[in-house]
Amino acid sequence: MSIDSSSPARWFVAAVLAFAALAAHAQPADPLPSWNAGTSKARIVAFVQAVTEPGGKDFVAPADRIAVFDNDGTLWSEQPMYFQLAFALDRVRALAPKRPEWKTKQPFKAAIEGDMKTLAAAGERGLLELVAASHAGLTTDEFAAVVKDWLATARHPKLERPYTELTFAPMVELLAYLRANGFQTWIVSGGGIEFMRVFAEQAYGVPPQQMIGSSLDLKYEVRNGKPVLVQQPKAAFIDDKAGKPVGIHKAIGKRPIAAFGNSDGDFQMLEWTTSAPGARLGVIVHHDDAEREYAYDRKSPFGKLDRGLDEAGPRGWTRVSMKNDWKQVYAPAR
Amino acid sequence: MSIDSSSPARWFVAAVLAFAALAAHAQPADPLPSWNAGTSKARIVAFVQAVTEPGGKDFVAPADRIAVFDNDGTLWSEQPMYFQLAFALDRVRALAPKRPEWKTKQPFKAAIEGDMKTLAAAGERGLLELVAASHAGLTTDEFAAVVKDWLATARHPKLERPYTELTFAPMVELLAYLRANGFQTWIVSGGGIEFMRVFAEQAYGVPPQQMIGSSLDLKYEVRNGKPVLVQQPKAAFIDDKAGKPVGIHKAIGKRPIAAFGNSDGDFQMLEWTTSAPGARLGVIVHHDDAEREYAYDRKSPFGKLDRGLDEAGPRGWTRVSMKNDWKQVYAPAR
Repeated sequence: MSIDSSSPARWFVAAVLAFAALAAHAQPADPLPSWNAGTSKARIVAFVQAVTEPGGKDFVAPADRIAVFDNDGTLWSEQPMYFQLAFALDRVRALAPKRPEWKTKQPFKAAIEGDMKTLAAAGERGLLELVAASHAGLTTDEFAAVVKDWLATARHPKLERPYTELTFAPMVELLAYLRANGFQTWIVSGGGIEFMRVFAEQAYGVPPQQMIGSSLDLKYEVRNGKPVLVQQPKAAFIDDKAGKPVGIHKAIGKRPIAAFGNSDGDFQMLEWTTSAPGARLGVIVHHDDAEREYAYDRKSPFGKLDRGLDEAGPRGWTRVSMKNDWKQVYAPAR
Repeated sequence: MSIDSSSPARWFVAAVLAFAALAAHAQPADPLPSWNAGTSKARIVAFVQAVTEPGGKDFVAPADRIAVFDNDGTLWSEQPMYFQLAFALDRVRALAPKRPEWKTKQPFKAAIEGDMKTLAAAGERGLLELVAASHAGLTTDEFAAVVKDWLATARHPKLERPYTELTFAPMVELLAYLRANGFQTWIVSGGGIEFMRVFAEQAYGVPPQQMIGSSLDLKYEVRNGKPVLVQQPKAAFIDDKAGKPVGIHKAIGKRPIAAFGNSDGDFQMLEWTTSAPGARLGVIVHHDDAEREYAYDRKSPFGKLDRGLDEAGPRGWTRVSMKNDWKQVYAPAR
C-alpha cells in the first residue's frame, strides 16, 4: 500500500500513532490541582492509595473509610474572628433596640460597641453567652432563614467577599478526592450545627447528616397544630477539644481513619483518629500565609495552635503549609 | 414448514409460546412476602410508589427519602420488659457482690431479688438509675464486649430464643424494601445507642451512623497513651417522646418522610414526620397478637399505646395489626 503524504489516510495514521504515543505516557489527571507537589500532597495521596488498594496490607473497606474535617480554619477562614461570631455580633446589634438591658451588660455592651478587646477578654464563656442569647428563641427554621439572609449580604472585613466564598479551594478538592475514593466525609466543628447546615452542603458537598457541631438545647412545641423546634439559651453540647471524639463516637459509632484540623481544638480528634491500629492520616493546616490569608498559631485568640505544632512531628501528623503547599487559597471570585 | 409433533423444534416453539404467555401475565416478585394483602400493606406500597415515581406529583429526591424506625416494639419485641432492661438487671446481679450497698438500696435491691413489682413502681427515673449505674465506668469498647457476650448467651424467658432472633421479619423486610427504593433507613430508639450498635447493623442492615438513641455522658481519657471514651453515670440525652424529633433533627438535619413506631413514645416522631407538606407515611405497629407475640396497648408498662391509638385514624397514620397483617412475626429459629 502506498499512502500519499497529503492524503486523509496518511493524516489518520499519524493521528493514531501520536495518540498511541501519548497514551503510553499518559498520566491520570491530577485529582488535587490546587496542591503544589511536595511532602504534604505526596503523603495524602499515598495514604489514599494504600487504604483503597484491593488486597493491599493497608486496605480498608469502603464502609470504614471515614474522614473527619474541622470547619473553622480548616475548610474556611476564621480570622479576624470566627464567622459565626461575626454573625452573632451583627445579630446582637440588630436585636439591641428590643433588649435595652444589653446596653450596660457585658459582653453585650462590648458587642454593641464593637469593643473587641473587652470581647476577647470575655473568653469562651462570654462568647458562648453571646451566641446563646443571640441565637435562642427562634425555631430552627426561623434561625436558618436569618443565617441565610446574613450570609447573602455580609462581607468579610478584610477580604471584602461573602463569607461563603472564603472556603479553601484545596480542601474542597480534597473532600471530593476522598469521596471519589469511597470515603464518607464528615464535618466536626466547634461551630454551631444549625449555622453550618445553612451553607455547608453547597460549599463542601457534605450532606446535613454528616455534620457534627456544637448545639443549643431544642424544645419541641406544637404551635397552631404545627410542630416546631425552638432554640433554647443553653448549650446542649460543645463539640471542641475532648468533645470532638465524643461527638464523633455518638454520631458515627466508628473511629475515623483520617482527620483534618488546624488548631489545638482538633488535637483530641487527631489523637483519637491516629492512635488506632492500621493506616491512619492526621493533617494539620498551618496558617502561615500572611499574604494570601493570615499567619497565626501559638498566640491567636481564634484557632490557637500550640501543642499540635509541637507534637505533629512526633505523632506522624502531616503539617500542611498554606503558603507552600497550596497553589491557591480561595477559588477566584465569582 | 411442517413440524413433526415429536421433533425438538416443536418443543422449542411450544416453550417459547409458554414463556411469552407467562411473561404477559408476569407479576414482579412481592417485595413484602411476610405481609398479608390488606390495607396496611397496600398503603405502604402505594406511598413508596408515589414518592419514587419520576415526574409524579409526590416524587421525592433520593437524598430526602429519610425513613425513621423506633426499635423496641417496632423492630423487635419489648415484653415482658425492654431487652436492654433485662441486660441491665443481669448486669446489676453480676456486679452485686462488689457493690454491697445495693443490697439495701432501691431500685437495686429489687433488681437483685427479681422483685418486678417494686421495679415497675420505680418508674422511668428508677430504671434510668439502674441503667446508668450498671452501664457506667466501662469504656465504650469494654461495654460493647459485655453486651456482645450477653446477647450470645441470654435467652428470652417466654420464647426461649436469643434476643437477636426476636426481630420482626416483616419489618426487616420493610427496611430492605425501602432501601431498595432509595430510602435511607434510620433507627430512632429510646434505648441506648451503645447497646443498640452491638447488634443492630447485623439485625437490620442499618449502619452505626444511622442510629439515634439515648446516651450517657462520655469522658475522653488517655490511658497509657491510648485514648478511650468512658461511660459516665449521667444521662446525656433521652431519645424518647418529644426527644425523638430533637434527636432526629440534630443527627439528620432533615425531616423524615416516613416514620414507624408502636407506642406513645413515638407520638412526636410521627407527628413531626407527618405534619410536613408532601406525601408522608406514619405507621403504628399494634401488638394485638397474644398467640404469636404479646397483646398490649393502653395499659402496658412497656410500650404503652394510648394517645396514638386514638389519634392514628384522624391523623391518617396506618395501624398495622400484627395478628392480621403479618404472615409471620419472627423468622424461623436458626
